[in-house]
Amino acid sequence: MANLSNPVMSSSALVEPRPLRVGLLGFGTVGEGTYRMLLDNAESVAAKAGIPLVVQRVGVRDTQKPRSAPSGLFTSDLQSVVDDPEVDIVVEVIGGIDPAVALVERALANKKPVVTANKEMIAKVGHRLVNQAHKNGLDLHFEAAVGGGIPVIQALKHQLAGNDVPRMLGILNGTSNYILTKMSETGAPFDEVLAEAQGLGYAEADPTNDVDGFDTLYKIAILAGIVYGGPADLDQIHREGIRHLDAREFDYARILGYTIRLLGVAEECGPRRVRLRVHPTMVKNDHPLAGVRDVFNALWFHGDFVGDLMFSGRGAGADPTASAVVGDLIDVARNYNLQGSGSAIPYGQSLAMEPMETVESRYYVRLNVLDRPNTLGRIATAFGEHEVGLAEMEMHVVGPDEGEIAFLTHISKEGDFVRSLTAIEELPVVNMVAAWMRVEG
Amino acid sequence: MANLSNPVMSSSALVEPRPLRVGLLGFGTVGEGTYRMLLDNAESVAAKAGIPLVVQRVGVRDTQKPRSAPSGLFTSDLQSVVDDPEVDIVVEVIGGIDPAVALVERALANKKPVVTANKEMIAKVGHRLVNQAHKNGLDLHFEAAVGGGIPVIQALKHQLAGNDVPRMLGILNGTSNYILTKMSETGAPFDEVLAEAQGLGYAEADPTNDVDGFDTLYKIAILAGIVYGGPADLDQIHREGIRHLDAREFDYARILGYTIRLLGVAEECGPRRVRLRVHPTMVKNDHPLAGVRDVFNALWFHGDFVGDLMFSGRGAGADPTASAVVGDLIDVARNYNLQGSGSAIPYGQSLAMEPMETVESRYYVRLNVLDRPNTLGRIATAFGEHEVGLAEMEMHVVGPDEGEIAFLTHISKEGDFVRSLTAIEELPVVNMVAAWMRVEG
Repeated sequence: MANLSNPVMSSSALVEPRPLRVGLLGFGTVGEGTYRMLLDNAESVAAKAGIPLVVQRVGVRDTQKPRSAPSGLFTSDLQSVVDDPEVDIVVEVIGGIDPAVALVERALANKKPVVTANKEMIAKVGHRLVNQAHKNGLDLHFEAAVGGGIPVIQALKHQLAGNDVPRMLGILNGTSNYILTKMSETGAPFDEVLAEAQGLGYAEADPTNDVDGFDTLYKIAILAGIVYGGPADLDQIHREGIRHLDAREFDYARILGYTIRLLGVAEECGPRRVRLRVHPTMVKNDHPLAGVRDVFNALWFHGDFVGDLMFSGRGAGADPTASAVVGDLIDVARNYNLQGSGSAIPYGQSLAMEPMETVESRYYVRLNVLDRPNTLGRIATAFGEHEVGLAEMEMHVVGPDEGEIAFLTHISKEGDFVRSLTAIEELPVVNMVAAWMRVEG
Repeated sequence: MANLSNPVMSSSALVEPRPLRVGLLGFGTVGEGTYRMLLDNAESVAAKAGIPLVVQRVGVRDTQKPRSAPSGLFTSDLQSVVDDPEVDIVVEVIGGIDPAVALVERALANKKPVVTANKEMIAKVGHRLVNQAHKNGLDLHFEAAVGGGIPVIQALKHQLAGNDVPRMLGILNGTSNYILTKMSETGAPFDEVLAEAQGLGYAEADPTNDVDGFDTLYKIAILAGIVYGGPADLDQIHREGIRHLDAREFDYARILGYTIRLLGVAEECGPRRVRLRVHPTMVKNDHPLAGVRDVFNALWFHGDFVGDLMFSGRGAGADPTASAVVGDLIDVARNYNLQGSGSAIPYGQSLAMEPMETVESRYYVRLNVLDRPNTLGRIATAFGEHEVGLAEMEMHVVGPDEGEIAFLTHISKEGDFVRSLTAIEELPVVNMVAAWMRVEG
């Protein structure tokens, strides 16, 4: 129960409550945005949290760099921030593993609740950190780690928690979604669109994390950890990026009524048994995810009671991410007032992971073939012999003696489909399997 | 801090924690759905809540009616449920004011946390009940009161709470949205589509609450209360329903690239100063709300830091609403375990309400006119004299000597626009102002 004699709790104006003091680790895009939001919206934040929030100390690598905050706040001794008795809550926005994990562990050991935006850390060791927080009766919040300002994490932890969840699909990386949107609209190749995105600041100089699917992989692992109650082995998550996508696939997607999106997919295969995968996907144009464009993120969620839900919004950037960090801080502050902590939900055992072989999906495939009288018959027969049914086909002559065929299959087992492609590649009338992709909707 | 010696808290398997016992008031659609979800998903609910939840007692008007639960659970003495020392949490799903409000007040007085789906009660006296809960250190949750299973309430209370919110727009009534979708697709008149919706169970025998905008009004008032921190005077909320809509408006909407939706709109006009309104609106087809079809609900939210967000899903029905009630129960159970309560955020003073006169919007208007050489000139001049700029126009001959003109204006002040219509209606070349509507997007 709330301790009503605690001055922090007092709702009378007689005793000005001492503000909650935030120690900020990192002052990059997100750190600076968080600082600015706490300042700009100080009044409404205090009203919602029941107490003012102030940034007490900021740990950065380089204290000489000019910053948009008083220089007296900064220190290069990061550990001193989490050890400072005048810091009540720690916000970690450095990112990555080292030194972030050690600092968060130390903050929790010092009985300070933690708010973080660090997806890599939560995906890799979140279960350990959350369980440490739970044991110490502390909050460890990470709303900003997935979907920027879109409030998916707490919704999955709380309001949707009563549902069994057969499936979740997410567009979780804004950079990839921007590139895919532009490739689709302009017909330009990947490298050209990437360079343009880098020029606009939508992609980093080294885009690996975004375009090769690592970022999406961390995020779908975090969502699955919450929904299915245990950490996922990241090495067992199937991952394909968007670098290899050919402009031809966008042409066929358009002709067939689809859009290409990089999806993170989580599927329940049994109790505590899941399949997690990240790959470009042809999404039917009438699926809500097909309309999510540019740098927007979205999560499509199916629960056994709630049915289909969709969340969408800006999944990255200083301000939306700050919105999530500050939302978490308000939550922590409210629990702090009440001398309790509600939100560190312990993780259970690691999830069992199903292999890709067992996926059931529709598939898109594009073949380069020789233009012979029996080409189509032999290919169709090979699909049929592997239990792969064909739903739609586009066939074009692309040169003297050469053709291109694109198929959409009915729902098939991935094992069967992959074996059918091996058989088809060996046919004398087939030059190559040029590309294939899973299909949603 | 969590009391680790409390057996309810124990995470060891040695001590089986006593389940949390739910007293259910009402066993209609939502009550029965809640009962079924607690039973069907008992294992995952217990895992998420940290403790099993069981229905201990159900209060209903008629205990003779056959029910899908053991008859021993039921009593017609509703007050005995909230007084029962063996009930830990009360779920109120009777709806309406009497006897729901008195029962909830009594439950709170008995130190029992409450979960409710009752939008009328929360819109009318939520501030009083929440403040009572807060004073007693109790939770009062009402996620199911707005948007069914879509987790908007807690997102506004928590994750988005750091944002200043210039605007929110909601499709908050599934019945109206279904009727508008069908009217748009089939061209059929309101009465015909309403009768069909009644046949399908999407509309009640007395549809007033849904189609005249009362339900949407309650919901936008609840959302505004959370975001802007005080109750709204319901009598000062502008309300128009969809009964009067003519099929012609759907024709013009289609021609102009718009869709008609019943929106609840909340706008911040200054500190604790808002404008709330409910009315059919022409929504541009590229606005995310235009794609929300049939019985689906959605909330479009703009925050100063998070930017544009959208939530959509099933806004009514037994299962989605049960999902929200059970999510709230899990939250309460978790707080109960920790002997604290975090979520009853007290309301402040009533919000100041701005009149409709001050709305700034684009407008649609359809005029019946006489086909005269100077008709258009005189009308356009009258708009201009009232500072209303015209953006688009459709003009048709509809009979001998008669025409119809539809305009879309630029952004104008509602006061100016309404005065321009009064002047136009007095022109000898104008038979009548047949219809007008506000426009979004």
